[in-house]
Amino acid sequence: MYIILVYDIQVARVAKVCKYLRQHLNWIQNSVFEGQLTKAQLARVKSGLAALTNPEYDSIIIYQLRDARWMNKEVMGVDKNPATNLL
Amino acid sequence: MYIILVYDIQVARVAKVCKYLRQHLNWIQNSVFEGQLTKAQLARVKSGLAALTNPEYDSIIIYQLRDARWMNKEVMGVDKNPATNLL
Repeated sequence: MYIILVYDIQVARVAKVCKYLRQHLNWIQNSVFEGQLTKAQLARVKSGLAALTNPEYDSIIIYQLRDARWMNKEVMGVDKNPATNLL
Repeated sequence: MYIILVYDIQVARVAKVCKYLRQHLNWIQNSVFEGQLTKAQLARVKSGLAALTNPEYDSIIIYQLRDARWMNKEVMGVDKNPATNLL
């Protein structure tokens, strides 16, 4: 599965969440990550995120695509992580 | 086409960009928009964004899916715009 993950996390927790996600996905730009994960890996990442965030204040959206080829990605302006644009 | 748009815009320009995008897409959470656009509509939105942003500092990523059904969307924590979760 190809994952696009965006988050809106309170300042007190965002650094830890970002550090955690860098271990599992590609940092794309502020609060945006992408990457290929299996269902089991995604389940692990979600439980890791649950432990680091407060569901009453923080918001995480996980877009799951069966295949990255079903998506076209276009960057306007600065590409903050060009390495990931090898789709 | 179903669009997921994320941006990382400098403070001086972000309010105008957000206001502009609210006219064309659904606000999902900070710096994240979604919505259905035709190719012509997307072209118009992109030229509007080009006029409002500075490509040397600002970054916009546009994910295009032929159909929203090819994507599964999951929200952890606060759903900042529940109205859009009717996929």
